[in-house]
Amino acid sequence: MSRYPSQLNFIIAYLKRLPGVGRKTAERFAFALLDWPEKELSSFAERLEALKKEITPCKACGCLIDEGGCFSCARELRSPSLLCLVASPRDVYSIEETNAYKGRYHVLGGLISPLDGRDPSSLSLQKLLERISSESIDEVILAFDSTLEGDATALFVKEKLDSIGVKASRLASGIPMGSSLEYVDFGTLEKAFTGRHSF
Amino acid sequence: MSRYPSQLNFIIAYLKRLPGVGRKTAERFAFALLDWPEKELSSFAERLEALKKEITPCKACGCLIDEGGCFSCARELRSPSLLCLVASPRDVYSIEETNAYKGRYHVLGGLISPLDGRDPSSLSLQKLLERISSESIDEVILAFDSTLEGDATALFVKEKLDSIGVKASRLASGIPMGSSLEYVDFGTLEKAFTGRHSF
Repeated sequence: MSRYPSQLNFIIAYLKRLPGVGRKTAERFAFALLDWPEKELSSFAERLEALKKEITPCKACGCLIDEGGCFSCARELRSPSLLCLVASPRDVYSIEETNAYKGRYHVLGGLISPLDGRDPSSLSLQKLLERISSESIDEVILAFDSTLEGDATALFVKEKLDSIGVKASRLASGIPMGSSLEYVDFGTLEKAFTGRHSF
Repeated sequence: MSRYPSQLNFIIAYLKRLPGVGRKTAERFAFALLDWPEKELSSFAERLEALKKEITPCKACGCLIDEGGCFSCARELRSPSLLCLVASPRDVYSIEETNAYKGRYHVLGGLISPLDGRDPSSLSLQKLLERISSESIDEVILAFDSTLEGDATALFVKEKLDSIGVKASRLASGIPMGSSLEYVDFGTLEKAFTGRHSF
């Protein structure tokens, strides 16, 4: 890598920080960027520069604010008694694409992950608890990843919600749509059995 | 995608243009960039802005020029009679890493690819032919990809070199180091048979 011109090495170092991008991919991206017309590269750089300045999270719920204001807080049609708790603003968009949820959102900003130095105290639950007490929220849906970190965070948040008497629910785990049983891992299959329902 | 704030959509559109990056990956990258500290994002944007301004190809051979001047042309120790013809500046670095080649380089700037609208006339061979006639070059090694485009370009360039009486050679094709025969495709195996050597 040190053989490349130093300007290219800087770009490669930045690109390597993107999720799932290793040295080879970063090098490939850097050479591709070098092939872009100078005008487009400048325009991309300007957009990047402006990204954090123009997109800010909503102070109330943590969702990303667009020109029209906060996506989740502004909608009068949304059920005010239902709150969906997610780890990152991105999850909000995944859930919105399903059209299956019509309540409001609250972004936690991360999951408990001791290996990454994120223990329960790093979660900013205070804002959530204040929001629950000031708004008439009946149920909080914990929409976290189905991972060790997601499970730990869900358990921790549920305890807090139990203590103030608010119902907590989690997304169902089971067989993904379109999957064959033979390709489903044992853990998922076990969850699908435990969560079976009459139909 | 239209649900995202527009600034984020711009970034996603640019990231999608990187090689091998689809919509989902571009979205993932964009949200990762949103998590970077503002200072680092600005610094990345500045580097991008400067990339094309600070890295220019050598006028003589097409290699990328670093602070120290042209990598390939400047080295007095390099054999002046051997020229390696590559498609892009990136290939030069791949070959340099092997330490197996001690001649000079010439970057063609692309391969013949009719599907992408690149026919033989789009190759800038004039500079190469001028260089061969002004420098005392005995052999030109065509170091192109082992693809349809690489093969077509090699044949086309070889004809030109034959007409001016300069020897052209191509990289050997065969079994990659560390591969088992059972995993090697028929085309590669056939090339390995044709190119077999006594030892």
